[in-house]
Amino acid sequence: MITIQDFRSLMSCGNDAVRAVTKFGVAAMILVWAFSPAQARAAVEGEAQFVFNTFAFLVWGALVMWMAAGFTMLEAGSVRTKNASMICLKNIGLYSIAGLGYFAVGFNIMYVGVDPGGWFGSLGFLYGTTADEVALLGGEESVAAAVVESGYSAMSYWFFQMVFVATTASIVSGALAERVKLWSFFLFIAVLTAFVYPIVGAWTWAGGWLAELGFKDFAGSTVVHSTGGWAALAGAIMVGPRSGKFRADGSVKATPPSNIPVVTLGVFILWLGWFGFNGGSQLALGGAVDAVAVSNIFANTNLAAAAGVMAALSLSRPVLGRIDLLAGLNGTLAGLVAITAAPDIVQHHWAVVIGAIGGVVCLVSMRLLETLKIDDVVGAVPVHLCTGIWGTLAVCIVGGGSIFAQVVGILAVGVFVFGLSMLLWFAIDRTIGLRVAHDVEAIGQDVGELGIEAYPEFIVVPEED
Amino acid sequence: MITIQDFRSLMSCGNDAVRAVTKFGVAAMILVWAFSPAQARAAVEGEAQFVFNTFAFLVWGALVMWMAAGFTMLEAGSVRTKNASMICLKNIGLYSIAGLGYFAVGFNIMYVGVDPGGWFGSLGFLYGTTADEVALLGGEESVAAAVVESGYSAMSYWFFQMVFVATTASIVSGALAERVKLWSFFLFIAVLTAFVYPIVGAWTWAGGWLAELGFKDFAGSTVVHSTGGWAALAGAIMVGPRSGKFRADGSVKATPPSNIPVVTLGVFILWLGWFGFNGGSQLALGGAVDAVAVSNIFANTNLAAAAGVMAALSLSRPVLGRIDLLAGLNGTLAGLVAITAAPDIVQHHWAVVIGAIGGVVCLVSMRLLETLKIDDVVGAVPVHLCTGIWGTLAVCIVGGGSIFAQVVGILAVGVFVFGLSMLLWFAIDRTIGLRVAHDVEAIGQDVGELGIEAYPEFIVVPEED
Amino acid sequence: MITIQDFRSLMSCGNDAVRAVTKFGVAAMILVWAFSPAQARAAVEGEAQFVFNTFAFLVWGALVMWMAAGFTMLEAGSVRTKNASMICLKNIGLYSIAGLGYFAVGFNIMYVGVDPGGWFGSLGFLYGTTADEVALLGGEESVAAAVVESGYSAMSYWFFQMVFVATTASIVSGALAERVKLWSFFLFIAVLTAFVYPIVGAWTWAGGWLAELGFKDFAGSTVVHSTGGWAALAGAIMVGPRSGKFRADGSVKATPPSNIPVVTLGVFILWLGWFGFNGGSQLALGGAVDAVAVSNIFANTNLAAAAGVMAALSLSRPVLGRIDLLAGLNGTLAGLVAITAAPDIVQHHWAVVIGAIGGVVCLVSMRLLETLKIDDVVGAVPVHLCTGIWGTLAVCIVGGGSIFAQVVGILAVGVFVFGLSMLLWFAIDRTIGLRVAHDVEAIGQDVGELGIEAYPEFIVVPEED
Repeated sequence: MITIQDFRSLMSCGNDAVRAVTKFGVAAMILVWAFSPAQARAAVEGEAQFVFNTFAFLVWGALVMWMAAGFTMLEAGSVRTKNASMICLKNIGLYSIAGLGYFAVGFNIMYVGVDPGGWFGSLGFLYGTTADEVALLGGEESVAAAVVESGYSAMSYWFFQMVFVATTASIVSGALAERVKLWSFFLFIAVLTAFVYPIVGAWTWAGGWLAELGFKDFAGSTVVHSTGGWAALAGAIMVGPRSGKFRADGSVKATPPSNIPVVTLGVFILWLGWFGFNGGSQLALGGAVDAVAVSNIFANTNLAAAAGVMAALSLSRPVLGRIDLLAGLNGTLAGLVAITAAPDIVQHHWAVVIGAIGGVVCLVSMRLLETLKIDDVVGAVPVHLCTGIWGTLAVCIVGGGSIFAQVVGILAVGVFVFGLSMLLWFAIDRTIGLRVAHDVEAIGQDVGELGIEAYPEFIVVPEED
Repeated sequence: MITIQDFRSLMSCGNDAVRAVTKFGVAAMILVWAFSPAQARAAVEGEAQFVFNTFAFLVWGALVMWMAAGFTMLEAGSVRTKNASMICLKNIGLYSIAGLGYFAVGFNIMYVGVDPGGWFGSLGFLYGTTADEVALLGGEESVAAAVVESGYSAMSYWFFQMVFVATTASIVSGALAERVKLWSFFLFIAVLTAFVYPIVGAWTWAGGWLAELGFKDFAGSTVVHSTGGWAALAGAIMVGPRSGKFRADGSVKATPPSNIPVVTLGVFILWLGWFGFNGGSQLALGGAVDAVAVSNIFANTNLAAAAGVMAALSLSRPVLGRIDLLAGLNGTLAGLVAITAAPDIVQHHWAVVIGAIGGVVCLVSMRLLETLKIDDVVGAVPVHLCTGIWGTLAVCIVGGGSIFAQVVGILAVGVFVFGLSMLLWFAIDRTIGLRVAHDVEAIGQDVGELGIEAYPEFIVVPEED
Repeated sequence: MITIQDFRSLMSCGNDAVRAVTKFGVAAMILVWAFSPAQARAAVEGEAQFVFNTFAFLVWGALVMWMAAGFTMLEAGSVRTKNASMICLKNIGLYSIAGLGYFAVGFNIMYVGVDPGGWFGSLGFLYGTTADEVALLGGEESVAAAVVESGYSAMSYWFFQMVFVATTASIVSGALAERVKLWSFFLFIAVLTAFVYPIVGAWTWAGGWLAELGFKDFAGSTVVHSTGGWAALAGAIMVGPRSGKFRADGSVKATPPSNIPVVTLGVFILWLGWFGFNGGSQLALGGAVDAVAVSNIFANTNLAAAAGVMAALSLSRPVLGRIDLLAGLNGTLAGLVAITAAPDIVQHHWAVVIGAIGGVVCLVSMRLLETLKIDDVVGAVPVHLCTGIWGTLAVCIVGGGSIFAQVVGILAVGVFVFGLSMLLWFAIDRTIGLRVAHDVEAIGQDVGELGIEAYPEFIVVPEED
């Protein structure tokens, strides 16, 4: 082995050439050290990072896709049996429409060519993989570097974003269940997922004007949940309450869920899917920083949901006079929605606090909605809109978002989505009609519109008025 | 730092030795550059690739395993309540038998020692991990290179392949529900999963004669879905329709699903699992090319399913006179089966087209089957066989498979599986019997064979004839 | 290119300086070779390993979290309809309490500062991420090496461990269903998950005295399943059987599951989740050894479950006089519990044997429990305790654990958990009460305690005595 002694004697010799050549050797060794894998130990390099990020988008995206099943179960168990088939159909349809609409139009408007501080992207059609990716798949190794440089596969990102827009759409179906017409609902969903949601996304996550203002919404308390909630609120107002829900004497007709195990299954599916929803919103898993962040997000997501459950359950006794299962179930979702704007915060006790307050906000706004005689079958507005607003504001407590930017964001999205949704629901109502005929509502959409009962063999208790 | 100046002066000096030594330094630097991690950025190396591939097989395999639950729910909700327990038992049993049979025999026949262009592999028993893997687990680091060289862990591949054979088996149970005897069914499944399916697999995916002919079937429109569909068709013919299904006057007795939310849950589970089914069939996730391919597969799988739903739903109105929920649900699966032979195509609009046509093919063949008085309780033949054929042909449109090879493959698999299945069902019928006694069918297999009702507390509408 | 010729002529020249400088060049080239990525090919380095391990904890942890839904469905389908809402609430509550309790207290007791051979860790509060991880998230790149050195993100490990404690809690709820008071149950769960389970964990997995003794329990046949089983057994004894279950004439009242498809769904969810449960217990996925081990675990887990199903099903005919669905379903879980102590064994045929015997142990102990007039609604004690003991002993057959250590472990955990649980249940009984009033039990906890029926629209068969 050569030693530092060798080096010294070489450099002190009279021959310039020898000294120069010695410098060569040393430089080579420094280079070896600088770029050697011993250093590489500290960093995931290029292509591995690309695979990690892409794999994560696909796995987390699959979990979020699974939330579509969660909403379906939640809603199918919450409606009366006479409308359970129809709500299943609406949900499988809305997930399909969201996927096609976001592919054909939405993704482009949201992410392609949004100017910094701008309002929306380009109105494209049929978004595809990039030319480099196509070339790579075609065997052109020369483009590998360009693809790897992009950080993740384009369609894995599309997939992850697509399941988010489907979530937004799922929020609407529950609120308007049991009375809105199938194709009228589908038409609204097509516009919501191809245009309305993508524009909100362009303002925020794509670097548009709200992002420039400093608005923070990590995984979508506002972008996804409030957007869905506003659209649902507009619809619930336009379509009106189920007939008989609010009686002339001021009392409210009880419409208990028809199948509690199915509702509970839905809640568990949503809880599971939310790990993908929040964890995936880190948008990367290619190194230690991202891995640590996603882990914290998983823990905070779980803590907030658990706190939401226990807060709502404990509170249900003093407020409602009994331990309330539905309060607990909605408390789960409220905790989850509340933490969604800032699950990447590090202090885990804040996740507990934010989730618990979310459970309370949800309980209180469920009451409020009933007072306002707005009929929301599954509590979509309390859970997603009201708690979504709370979560967006809570960012200021923990993450340092400016309260001004958060309030502007909440208001801007509210005015835009609620206003446009009112217009849309109104236009649909005046053209193809929004609400099913009174006798269809009475016998249920399953028999009235579909001719397929959800549980044709079980004898059902006759409905009271 | 040394400069290009230093280099020039050294090389131009009169001393040969100095020039030679300078070459050393330069060569060293070139080596540093050539093999430095800066280059490594472009490739996932050895062991990381091994872990990626193995991890992917396990995750995607778990999603496909979950499809067993999806088929169970689909079928349990589709049969009448009096047979719902039995179909649950059949499904949990078939998944178990498939796992044991494929372990003991099937995997070997399918993958071990198949000659190029050959017909089947070796009839082994108790396939285990390779010797190198066992040595590695035992602490022999010296074999690590050999294991890493293999690309992925052997049992992760076994797991992924095992859940595929289980899928094939699941297809059969739904078609024959409500009338086939439990152990007769189990016997057929044992032969199907240990011998029949593995032989088809050897012909195709293991490089057998159909592969040599140029037959293309990426994730199994033919290998999995048509194979299951042919076996189901043979069974449905041999066991005959449910008593009273086809009336003497030519009319068909309606046998609506007994639990729509459970059917819908099954469809969502299958949709979710299909990402693993198609995505995992890339058989790798160890670099940018595979990551891009899998991402495209996810997107195409989702687009085809969504298109299948909307095509079947839209068509159900003109064809059936009403919006049909079951058409929509089967349209999902049809879209998925259709894209399964070529989900790795890059042009996403083709996925939409192939899926949509799949939905139509399924609708039309459901009609056809009824005309032929073949009673298929869940529409397994239309969904898996007919749409599987369409998907296999569609490869020619997008992927460049030869129409000759595709047709030969479809026919060969059809003749082999359908023929062998007819023989098997016939042999079972003549020995231990295929169909339950008439009175067991009348009171249902749950009470008649199991003594366990699916919903013992709910009062059920008396069945009409 | 320089050649070995150049090298020889340089080293044989008279000039010492030239020879020394040549050594430099050669040393540089050796360094390049020694640390070059060509070598790196054989090992996943630092940060990639960190990401693999963390990603795996999150994915496997999510699968185990999903088991909470599995237990919920299993139990909601197993109880009578009049208690199905309450069991849903208990399950969503217990998962929440487990998460909060393990966060606030349990994790610290189990893992933080456990002395080698010790009894428990520190009584901390609000476990957080390590300082290094917080600094890394805050942008201090200098701490990256320390974080990467730790092997995985702290909170990913917490998440994976948290879902295990939730599993333990889930085991208890099923056994005591239909008669234990809600908040009394919750109180027990809080103590179980914050103190009892973590102490057992400290003895074993955290390197405490049982670990030092040589006790082996890979994924928790004893630590998780027997612990849950002992707590459930104590509760079942203290709360007593459901009224009317064991009649004065010695006969046993049949209490069949109310919803078989929902039970079956639960079993499939548990089967799926168990891949995460056992596979994740390898606690790493950062290299070929771990990837191979996890793959073997997946295969063995599936084989044991399948063998459990078929053994229990086959045996049910001679033993019970009929093919028994519930035997098959419990056989699944028994096979899974049995293999849990040693799923990392390499010989797959042992997994089949261990799982099959597990199915038999479960069947026999179900009989035994009934003889002892202990009322366990879902068979939690046979499945988790009895089969857990079998699995823990089976380690000696395959993995080389000492029979002495295994027996001591089984007894120590039994005495500790059963004793403490008896005390706890007793204290609860004497203070806030353990069992619901007789009339609440008669009308069911859903109406009596919650005011929410599980299936309010279905007409239910009046209960016989």
